[in-house]
Amino acid sequence: MPGNTFGHSLRITTWGESHGKAVGVVVDGVPAGLQLLEEDIQKDLDRRRPGQSEVSTPRLEADTVEILSGVFEGMTTGCPVSMLVWNRNANPSAYDYIRDIPRPGHADLFYREKYGLRDHRGGGRSSGRETIGRVAAGAIAKKLLSLHGVEVLAHVIELGGVKAGSVTFTGIRENVEKTPVRCADPQAAEKMLELVRLTRDEGDSIGGIVEIIATGVPAGIGEPVFNKLDADIAAALMSIGAVKGVEIGSGFECARMKGSQMNDAFVIDDASIIPDTNNAGGIIGGLSTGLPVICRIAVKPTPSISKSQKSVNMAQMKEVDIEIHGRHDPTIPPRMVPVAEAMMALVIADHMIRSGRIDPESLIK
Amino acid sequence: MPGNTFGHSLRITTWGESHGKAVGVVVDGVPAGLQLLEEDIQKDLDRRRPGQSEVSTPRLEADTVEILSGVFEGMTTGCPVSMLVWNRNANPSAYDYIRDIPRPGHADLFYREKYGLRDHRGGGRSSGRETIGRVAAGAIAKKLLSLHGVEVLAHVIELGGVKAGSVTFTGIRENVEKTPVRCADPQAAEKMLELVRLTRDEGDSIGGIVEIIATGVPAGIGEPVFNKLDADIAAALMSIGAVKGVEIGSGFECARMKGSQMNDAFVIDDASIIPDTNNAGGIIGGLSTGLPVICRIAVKPTPSISKSQKSVNMAQMKEVDIEIHGRHDPTIPPRMVPVAEAMMALVIADHMIRSGRIDPESLIK
Amino acid sequence: MPGNTFGHSLRITTWGESHGKAVGVVVDGVPAGLQLLEEDIQKDLDRRRPGQSEVSTPRLEADTVEILSGVFEGMTTGCPVSMLVWNRNANPSAYDYIRDIPRPGHADLFYREKYGLRDHRGGGRSSGRETIGRVAAGAIAKKLLSLHGVEVLAHVIELGGVKAGSVTFTGIRENVEKTPVRCADPQAAEKMLELVRLTRDEGDSIGGIVEIIATGVPAGIGEPVFNKLDADIAAALMSIGAVKGVEIGSGFECARMKGSQMNDAFVIDDASIIPDTNNAGGIIGGLSTGLPVICRIAVKPTPSISKSQKSVNMAQMKEVDIEIHGRHDPTIPPRMVPVAEAMMALVIADHMIRSGRIDPESLIK
Amino acid sequence: MPGNTFGHSLRITTWGESHGKAVGVVVDGVPAGLQLLEEDIQKDLDRRRPGQSEVSTPRLEADTVEILSGVFEGMTTGCPVSMLVWNRNANPSAYDYIRDIPRPGHADLFYREKYGLRDHRGGGRSSGRETIGRVAAGAIAKKLLSLHGVEVLAHVIELGGVKAGSVTFTGIRENVEKTPVRCADPQAAEKMLELVRLTRDEGDSIGGIVEIIATGVPAGIGEPVFNKLDADIAAALMSIGAVKGVEIGSGFECARMKGSQMNDAFVIDDASIIPDTNNAGGIIGGLSTGLPVICRIAVKPTPSISKSQKSVNMAQMKEVDIEIHGRHDPTIPPRMVPVAEAMMALVIADHMIRSGRIDPESLIK
Repeated sequence: MPGNTFGHSLRITTWGESHGKAVGVVVDGVPAGLQLLEEDIQKDLDRRRPGQSEVSTPRLEADTVEILSGVFEGMTTGCPVSMLVWNRNANPSAYDYIRDIPRPGHADLFYREKYGLRDHRGGGRSSGRETIGRVAAGAIAKKLLSLHGVEVLAHVIELGGVKAGSVTFTGIRENVEKTPVRCADPQAAEKMLELVRLTRDEGDSIGGIVEIIATGVPAGIGEPVFNKLDADIAAALMSIGAVKGVEIGSGFECARMKGSQMNDAFVIDDASIIPDTNNAGGIIGGLSTGLPVICRIAVKPTPSISKSQKSVNMAQMKEVDIEIHGRHDPTIPPRMVPVAEAMMALVIADHMIRSGRIDPESLIK
Repeated sequence: MPGNTFGHSLRITTWGESHGKAVGVVVDGVPAGLQLLEEDIQKDLDRRRPGQSEVSTPRLEADTVEILSGVFEGMTTGCPVSMLVWNRNANPSAYDYIRDIPRPGHADLFYREKYGLRDHRGGGRSSGRETIGRVAAGAIAKKLLSLHGVEVLAHVIELGGVKAGSVTFTGIRENVEKTPVRCADPQAAEKMLELVRLTRDEGDSIGGIVEIIATGVPAGIGEPVFNKLDADIAAALMSIGAVKGVEIGSGFECARMKGSQMNDAFVIDDASIIPDTNNAGGIIGGLSTGLPVICRIAVKPTPSISKSQKSVNMAQMKEVDIEIHGRHDPTIPPRMVPVAEAMMALVIADHMIRSGRIDPESLIK
Repeated sequence: MPGNTFGHSLRITTWGESHGKAVGVVVDGVPAGLQLLEEDIQKDLDRRRPGQSEVSTPRLEADTVEILSGVFEGMTTGCPVSMLVWNRNANPSAYDYIRDIPRPGHADLFYREKYGLRDHRGGGRSSGRETIGRVAAGAIAKKLLSLHGVEVLAHVIELGGVKAGSVTFTGIRENVEKTPVRCADPQAAEKMLELVRLTRDEGDSIGGIVEIIATGVPAGIGEPVFNKLDADIAAALMSIGAVKGVEIGSGFECARMKGSQMNDAFVIDDASIIPDTNNAGGIIGGLSTGLPVICRIAVKPTPSISKSQKSVNMAQMKEVDIEIHGRHDPTIPPRMVPVAEAMMALVIADHMIRSGRIDPESLIK
Repeated sequence: MPGNTFGHSLRITTWGESHGKAVGVVVDGVPAGLQLLEEDIQKDLDRRRPGQSEVSTPRLEADTVEILSGVFEGMTTGCPVSMLVWNRNANPSAYDYIRDIPRPGHADLFYREKYGLRDHRGGGRSSGRETIGRVAAGAIAKKLLSLHGVEVLAHVIELGGVKAGSVTFTGIRENVEKTPVRCADPQAAEKMLELVRLTRDEGDSIGGIVEIIATGVPAGIGEPVFNKLDADIAAALMSIGAVKGVEIGSGFECARMKGSQMNDAFVIDDASIIPDTNNAGGIIGGLSTGLPVICRIAVKPTPSISKSQKSVNMAQMKEVDIEIHGRHDPTIPPRMVPVAEAMMALVIADHMIRSGRIDPESLIK
């Protein structure tokens, strides 16, 4: 079974390679009656696109989205929304030197093990460009969610070991886009930025942690056994390239807590019952609790570095040294922010539709 | 869409409640020609069952499995394998006092938000007893994998803050079952055991970390975008109750590493190309690298504790104090070991079948 | 990918062989709050069970259903409903003579081609006994539909060439169970019954046509492209053993009609717009029209006949003559009536849930 | 759950509306290493395209396909193949007069019931133009099958009541494209053509029957219960607009046959066991028998006719007369031939991959 489709009631299928003609996505299951324009999508694509700042790859792509179907007179029709971005600045020949040499930390070798061949141009399908489809689809999910009171935000909370201080949700919303590292704590952001510059100059790269928060998710969303809300979120976030860990709420810290510390007590608030703390990160037993859903992902350092590394020339079967020159990000988390938001929004919207909290057919019947 | 089915080419559907008549699983997609007896299943169920040691709940259940279909003259037929365990020691009335009072850290309240009612007897479907089906199915997956050179082992590497020292794979295999805490480092195991006793006597509980390792997974297993091997593993492991985090290889530590440290270089080994370190944890770009797949999960402390906690009586809508007496585990990780192995084995077997590495129809054609 | 699961939002997984321990089904996606007792299920199983009349196999099975999960205090909980029927009158040794001889018209040989072995006892998994799970699940779907104004009925309209006259929906409801052939036209039923007796005495069997009607299906159910309501119904009905054709509305007759005859004109009726005829059989463009959904299926004659037939002894690889003695139905359509109703009800309930017309979580929130 | 994706191991997602920007398809699960050029696809699109003959709509569309992804240096890579056809001759304003008037026999009204709005331009998503994606994907499936010995052919065997005489498989292959009605019996074809002209001049339309044959399908393909090969074929074919019936082998005729006539006896042929007749149409118990798979579909007359029909103006809620002028086919079966072949090829290729008969990863490893 192939693996380019994600979701159940809201379902995306992405396609395209880094240096092929285009990349795109088909979004199926968008209820009819959602007002949708290309600028709704473009806004998030602009946050993802290369060349947006000094911490991202200098590849020049406007990444202008075209909506090809599923929208009629400015409204979704219930039919699949197909969206496409042309690859304008593709430069396949720049990758000739890695045709036979798998890059450490990349999937090159393993594509070949699986498929017997690979599109080596810029990583082909395994390139971060694949996430264009996710971000475009996520923009629809976010718009749909915003009509139902749900907001999804992500921000960088750690980069190369520099940790951000705590910031309120409003603070994140206001500050996150003010700095190219997308950290909402301005002091930490400054240090991170400096570290990125330094590392880039060394020909190296750094990893970090992105936190994703969804507010307004109603209680009881999710499925109790295998499609637990957190299980689907974990799959969604772990499916983003370079992510090596996912945690919810207290996450790995809970391994050092006692039950009496970890459990969120129940209290009555405004005639409804809610947990009075949120160690659970908004999900218990696979179901949303009504409190913010809070996740964090570990993002590895960009594998493409210009420092010399050991690899193997597959044609000659001999060990070689390789330096990855060309266009790549010195650190991934800042550009992963919109991608992580997109995946979180897609999962929550999917679960809200499948549980009937958002009408699966139409918003205007 | 309901959520009690997991997997694609090897697919399990679990059913049953903690104090209903029985719990069970239907396993679909087992290739024909696998020798299978009830003792193959029972072995793992015995490692999961309650009352097996002082660190597990005293509920008395033999958890004897019955295979009801899909096996003919000792061999699987390609038809679904239905397995069932009767609930013998069910004691529903012991739960009358929580009918109207949701237990902190449990999903009680959120089942009610979702379904408008709930089976309150021992957590109903959200009970750890649901994992019987997973373990039974996982035993089949493990047997299938063992014929194809893959072995899956899990062990406790941290409990209540006590960390185990490093142990070899062989060491894990030999030691893990020697102590009720399932930690392969004997010194750490001793300390963990002491801590469990202490915590239980305080009426509290502790969390921990379980590591799961799969050896012998061939390179190139997994799908490149959404059903990445690590994404499916993350979903599988996060779908186990009480798991709050999943990481692969270096995991969250990679956030503090540089690319030059994190990347596994390629070398030639015995005429094939392999990574010479395993920071990736056996998976890059969603595909297996041929090295051991290594994951860790964060397990929260058992939410059922006898210490007094705040909750709300839903019938009277007033805040109350609650103490959870009765049968529960003071810590979950030791009993989670076979469950985590099962989920990991199911994902790997599924991907080996879907990629054609294990014949989907039959082992004996 | 295995094939023992059917449906999306309402999803059944059946298991079990004719002469194994038991047969059963897990039904996932039943909304919480549906009152459900074993007698709700038993009623339909009694219409399917062997030995119920002279036109069915004399195998003696009470086919008593046990609900093992998903029901609490007489109501569904939203969790999977697992149901089981023990095989009491299994007589595997009666099938020893066909262990090596595939029966013409049966799947024996092709199971072996696929799986390398087969459970030869009474057809194993390919036996009509597999439909017990379908009928049990269908009884739940019917109950759910009845609360939403939908009724599903099937009846035999042709048997061995004897055609029934036209009968109203009320007439079908009143008459269909009055005769063992389940034909609602009493005169035709009498002739059919006679023909069945005659054929059985000849050691032969006859085929027929079953019509299935669903009333009260609201307009707009279905999906417009691949999960068209009629496509899903076709798959559902064609998945029943012995069915060789499915048609909707005018069906094959439409090949001889002109557009001006076939098209159902639109008229205003009681302030809503409806088709004034129903050549479409209640479905256009994959969507329900609001008029009754009408399908017909072609059922082949029972392949098990006592007349001598040619086959091959697979062990000796030589051609042989075979007579199938033992317990089998002289004609299948009468016993297929409840099975066809079940499959139709499952598809419609599935589509009503997935389109939000039935709440997917709960009837009582 | 949305319905624009079809298949399991080979999976297509189609998108696009008749008078939107473009229509297209994403094909996921194509094994790597298949040589694929745009002309492989174009060949079948040319057989489907409008304006190809006097029996098809005069809309002028070259329907030139662009492959946007998944092919590298002339070979598939295992990544999704995205294909697109621009709508060049769209003329949305020609449909203004039906914005408020649902056309009899079309899904217009029922899209509005479902979605609360509809894209009325040429039927929007319910247009026959949606099948471009199916045909493009089917061309890949056919090419893949041809490398594994399977050939799929369809032909018109009845049109407006004119029946074709029997023609051999070779005869079909040679003759079917020689006449615009795609009937392989030249005498019948001539009569059919005359009838089409006559009917068109009357402002009416006619239906017909298309037969689809697949040779070379190995025995044992399919799943035994719900994804029976015939069930999946039935769903595939019934999902094509205008199809009202599907039958396999003897089909509805089997209702009038006896078991002794219907059963295909087994004989030894060249050291293997095969059925000596093919009443089953190549499928028994959901599994292929090794003989040709033979299906027939009933296609209703084109609903768009220029004869006056009754409908309702939805804005004014009053009954009106409507004549459908503009571009439409006087009969559908000839243009359905490539569409039906595509759907059949997709199902068989899907089942061959999922059963491991075609390597799911790569043809060249």
